[in-house]
Amino acid sequence: MSEEVKPESVSLYSVSAAATPEQEAVCIFGTGDLGRSLGQRLLQSGYRLVYGSRRPHSCGPIPPGAQVMSHEIAARSASLVFVCVHREHYDFLETLAPHLKGKVLVDVSNNLKKNMYPEANAEFLQRLIPGAHVVKAFNTLSAWALQNGPSDANRQVYLCGNSPEAKQAVAEIATKLGFNVQDRGSLSAARELEDFPLQLFPEWRLPMRLTIGLTAFFFFYLLVRDVIFAYVDQGKDNSFRIMVSLANKVFPIVSLILLSLCYLPGVIAAFLQLYRGTKYKRFPDWLDRWMLCRKQLGLIALALASLHVLYTLIIPIRYYVRFRLAANTISQIKENKTSVFDTTMGWRTDSYYSMGILGFGLYLLLGIASLPSVSNALSWREFSFIQSKLGYLTLFFCTFHTYLYGWDKFLFISYYKWYTPPGYMLCLVVPSVVLLLKLLLLLPCVDKSLTRIRQGWERTDPEDDSKKSLLAKDCQKL
Amino acid sequence: MSEEVKPESVSLYSVSAAATPEQEAVCIFGTGDLGRSLGQRLLQSGYRLVYGSRRPHSCGPIPPGAQVMSHEIAARSASLVFVCVHREHYDFLETLAPHLKGKVLVDVSNNLKKNMYPEANAEFLQRLIPGAHVVKAFNTLSAWALQNGPSDANRQVYLCGNSPEAKQAVAEIATKLGFNVQDRGSLSAARELEDFPLQLFPEWRLPMRLTIGLTAFFFFYLLVRDVIFAYVDQGKDNSFRIMVSLANKVFPIVSLILLSLCYLPGVIAAFLQLYRGTKYKRFPDWLDRWMLCRKQLGLIALALASLHVLYTLIIPIRYYVRFRLAANTISQIKENKTSVFDTTMGWRTDSYYSMGILGFGLYLLLGIASLPSVSNALSWREFSFIQSKLGYLTLFFCTFHTYLYGWDKFLFISYYKWYTPPGYMLCLVVPSVVLLLKLLLLLPCVDKSLTRIRQGWERTDPEDDSKKSLLAKDCQKL
Amino acid sequence: MSEEVKPESVSLYSVSAAATPEQEAVCIFGTGDLGRSLGQRLLQSGYRLVYGSRRPHSCGPIPPGAQVMSHEIAARSASLVFVCVHREHYDFLETLAPHLKGKVLVDVSNNLKKNMYPEANAEFLQRLIPGAHVVKAFNTLSAWALQNGPSDANRQVYLCGNSPEAKQAVAEIATKLGFNVQDRGSLSAARELEDFPLQLFPEWRLPMRLTIGLTAFFFFYLLVRDVIFAYVDQGKDNSFRIMVSLANKVFPIVSLILLSLCYLPGVIAAFLQLYRGTKYKRFPDWLDRWMLCRKQLGLIALALASLHVLYTLIIPIRYYVRFRLAANTISQIKENKTSVFDTTMGWRTDSYYSMGILGFGLYLLLGIASLPSVSNALSWREFSFIQSKLGYLTLFFCTFHTYLYGWDKFLFISYYKWYTPPGYMLCLVVPSVVLLLKLLLLLPCVDKSLTRIRQGWERTDPEDDSKKSLLAKDCQKL
Repeated sequence: MSEEVKPESVSLYSVSAAATPEQEAVCIFGTGDLGRSLGQRLLQSGYRLVYGSRRPHSCGPIPPGAQVMSHEIAARSASLVFVCVHREHYDFLETLAPHLKGKVLVDVSNNLKKNMYPEANAEFLQRLIPGAHVVKAFNTLSAWALQNGPSDANRQVYLCGNSPEAKQAVAEIATKLGFNVQDRGSLSAARELEDFPLQLFPEWRLPMRLTIGLTAFFFFYLLVRDVIFAYVDQGKDNSFRIMVSLANKVFPIVSLILLSLCYLPGVIAAFLQLYRGTKYKRFPDWLDRWMLCRKQLGLIALALASLHVLYTLIIPIRYYVRFRLAANTISQIKENKTSVFDTTMGWRTDSYYSMGILGFGLYLLLGIASLPSVSNALSWREFSFIQSKLGYLTLFFCTFHTYLYGWDKFLFISYYKWYTPPGYMLCLVVPSVVLLLKLLLLLPCVDKSLTRIRQGWERTDPEDDSKKSLLAKDCQKL
Repeated sequence: MSEEVKPESVSLYSVSAAATPEQEAVCIFGTGDLGRSLGQRLLQSGYRLVYGSRRPHSCGPIPPGAQVMSHEIAARSASLVFVCVHREHYDFLETLAPHLKGKVLVDVSNNLKKNMYPEANAEFLQRLIPGAHVVKAFNTLSAWALQNGPSDANRQVYLCGNSPEAKQAVAEIATKLGFNVQDRGSLSAARELEDFPLQLFPEWRLPMRLTIGLTAFFFFYLLVRDVIFAYVDQGKDNSFRIMVSLANKVFPIVSLILLSLCYLPGVIAAFLQLYRGTKYKRFPDWLDRWMLCRKQLGLIALALASLHVLYTLIIPIRYYVRFRLAANTISQIKENKTSVFDTTMGWRTDSYYSMGILGFGLYLLLGIASLPSVSNALSWREFSFIQSKLGYLTLFFCTFHTYLYGWDKFLFISYYKWYTPPGYMLCLVVPSVVLLLKLLLLLPCVDKSLTRIRQGWERTDPEDDSKKSLLAKDCQKL
Repeated sequence: MSEEVKPESVSLYSVSAAATPEQEAVCIFGTGDLGRSLGQRLLQSGYRLVYGSRRPHSCGPIPPGAQVMSHEIAARSASLVFVCVHREHYDFLETLAPHLKGKVLVDVSNNLKKNMYPEANAEFLQRLIPGAHVVKAFNTLSAWALQNGPSDANRQVYLCGNSPEAKQAVAEIATKLGFNVQDRGSLSAARELEDFPLQLFPEWRLPMRLTIGLTAFFFFYLLVRDVIFAYVDQGKDNSFRIMVSLANKVFPIVSLILLSLCYLPGVIAAFLQLYRGTKYKRFPDWLDRWMLCRKQLGLIALALASLHVLYTLIIPIRYYVRFRLAANTISQIKENKTSVFDTTMGWRTDSYYSMGILGFGLYLLLGIASLPSVSNALSWREFSFIQSKLGYLTLFFCTFHTYLYGWDKFLFISYYKWYTPPGYMLCLVVPSVVLLLKLLLLLPCVDKSLTRIRQGWERTDPEDDSKKSLLAKDCQKL
């Protein structure tokens, strides 16, 4: 048997933490990994620790300084019990119910996947032992953080439970272990807390899939137009363009489409409200889901726009570009042509760059305003000013930037290789539609109706109308 | 009458949320938009909901699952009442005072503009019904968030009130609806909470106006020097320069001025304290206001500096620049000149860029450190190290960058078109003054006096001095 | 005597704040700078204020509106006393113990350096006056913030104490003064709070020293190779290269080394766990310390990488580069050579840039995810996905970027000036080792063992093994 185990021994005091008589005792049921990690930290923080185990004499190594006892005796020695046992083994706790009456039971368990059981583990535990005060806590931390204290994504201890006093007792311990505590309400929030550690960017999935789909489509579309066409038509090997030139077309195209897709659902919702004449009817599910992932769409679009900026800025240091510029200069000299400066060209390209820079600058601002700590500091009037007013301005700048890029190219048949339009034309469709629809919504008559609907006004059928408007006056409305 | 309304009916249980006997009942006074939105969310979260209305039989549509009753009966059925009624109609509540005794009244109201009434709505309500426990809460959320739960700038529920128990009850509900709760103290904070949703970047107004003024001034100043002068003097059409070249002069100029204006008030305050010999006298109002908007000045300056960086980095891909470079090369060949590499020029331009990059890098660091979540994690010693020490270093780098840009141009009359100095010279005035004054403050003798004053020491008139210094020893000072 | 002092006067009401009978009285012991600053703010927030002083008639200026009395009388007039006295003078408080019984004593003191005294000031105070409820609070704020209210790094009031009611009373005051309150637990946390204002980026010191050391080494190494060698060997003055070219070599080299040093300790720890066959043994101290500064190492590396990006992007606007490009073109024409476009070169350089951009983009993502407000919003599964999976991907991109930069240069003797390898070769050693070791850890057999160990499994000696595995089944494990 390992030396560390001292079952039912009298070594009440931990070696590392100088034990004093005031030391509080806590109990842990279960000597598995989680129980052991948590126990180590509790001992370091100066708690007296008693493990409860079915076979206290043979239960594997436990942290030095702790005791192991039978569940009954362990439960008796502390008013707070951490249940570090798998849910499948909760049944045996039922037999301990008399010993756990009035005690605080901390459920730290997680499941391997969502919806494994009809009710949350903590609620199940509460049902098994109605006399105890079950608190769900610590389950969102990693075993590493439980053993070593808070680290980056492991600072918050979320807890929920029906007894305020029990929650307070658990909060005290969590604070002493160095964590910040956030109360999530009654035990009915337990399922949410149990699902939290299992999630891996659930709200990013749909936007990411859309991004990957669009990127793949435009990559192959442009590969055909820019590389394969040149190879088939002129036998030229343009394949090196994939790494920078192609990437620098795909990223801005997908970015602009995603940005406009952030604003499209809002416009659709507005027209739906106008059509229905009320704001109280639920939107269709697809629209709801779409609206909930607008932030993610916008942030992915921002990331792609940033890549576009970097890819654009390295253009002049590319070997290919330097080679071409030198070749141009040399050919000008050899052919003794004198090219004349074209002011329109100067205006166009400079405007094109300027729009791009201003659009990107505003876009960065939107991104910064969506950082949690920044958006929490804003009133919602400020937040909606930034995300709506400045957002549409950003969309306008970026769309205009793309139009200036295209300029009059759409007039020349040579740009339609194999009868396909250039990529930038395709990506202008959605933003142009969104901007047009938004312009429609800004017309005074439309805007007025929409504002009334959003303040709670409802359009009714003509026959009902007279009756309603009479009644409305009788009710206090805000 | 709409089907949804079931006044004084017996349908106690909502259809959507499986009702159980333990369901808590809450009451909402007022069936307007806000009452309806909030009610929808409360029902979804599993509360039993009773509306109080003057005319319960004819009060417009309410969410399915709720009941509508007269105010008296509704108040009796719940211990917590949301008052979703305009402040103008609060009077009728006075008659209900006996029914509201001991109840928690949640005031969710907002006003259309600041200072409409002499006292906060919640304080007015408390005065009307002294027997109730008024809690101000939920008013900072949008109606959308009330109906649909927390979203970006709608996560925090601020509440204030005089009864801790009442606040606790409201906090429980807010947590259950998914919000984070922040207690703002007693009911005297209600006015602040009522003003919050009305604000639109109040602290940004002065800095924004200053920025717009400076930008407009320098835009026209440089327009005259760079475009109009060329047109009048040489008949050249330089107008295309507006989009990039001019912008890339205006932005850095305004940015540097704003950055130095961040540090000027601190320097002025120091000299004022030295002159007065005490730190306990209030600064003049203009200085106070100036000091309070330093952060905003700095962030706007950072935004303009970022635009300057982007505008600078696209220089080599501009049509105009490529044209000029090619033209230079061609003319060198045609005239068969051999230009020689100038090491001084190499040093100067490279130092100029290097200073700019280091200054901008430090500036970004200052910006990141001013993010709420970052600055909250810093001790104020760390914060002031970054914002003061690194801030002056940033100002020094950026000023030096501009001096290197100017180099010896100030010696040549040709740069003073129409007797006006170039823009960069104008923008060097304030930062140079700030840096000089700061240098003065760093002189050991000045620094020592200032430190003593800031630790609480006060200079007195000579005759008082001897007496004071004797007395000072008798008092415990920190 | 100053006019502001009105010892034992009857002017109970402050002039600025309209005093009402309900005004709470608070007491401040000590009329030094801190007491005076805090008093000013308390008066502004509407509190009635009484100073306690040894010699109330001669204790220096106090804010108008406050009273000064002897300690005994002052203590009697309020239930809450701020102790704004240096710790050295705490002794005299012992004599006041009977008057302070049951009162809340707020200890706001700080020390001049860490570990000056064997116990925290607040704990010492509690020991002196066992009958009072000592709360440590406000000590992390600057005197400026105490006098003028919350500002950037002065928003949080941390407090700790043994009496929940006393903490509640102090929290009420702090909230009323405009601060956010964070409870740090019992009085044993006082030392931590007292150390907080003294700290100046303690966790950044080691990484900063390492960075400075590496930067200095590579600066001199490259100075010798790039500048001194050219001067000695060819008599060429390359010194201007220091400002940009050299900086743009040193920064990326140090950045890549630091980035790989972020991931090296994790790899070492994994091998150590594999070797020991358990996760419960503590790592050696140096490894622990190294692992704790990974975040700082990564952020410094990110800052240097950002500088590298900026230095790279200004390449084409440098005088030196433009001169060289023009000279190249001119020499091509004069010698009538026709250089041919090299597709391999096109692929190589474009891939090199593309890898760099993607690596830097991912790196920025890691940086954003380590902002406190962002990382707090992530589950640890999400956080470790970003910092581990995406982190290794970043390291791979950046290492590959450097390999592409080197390409086949290592084959040519001319690159080994004075028999020294180029800088980029030196910086590839650590990242290559880290990536190789990580690859080893990803082998299925190794990965499986490691996973088991991290889930709590322990390898034991063969003779114990059979016994253990039998016993293990008897214990509930999580």
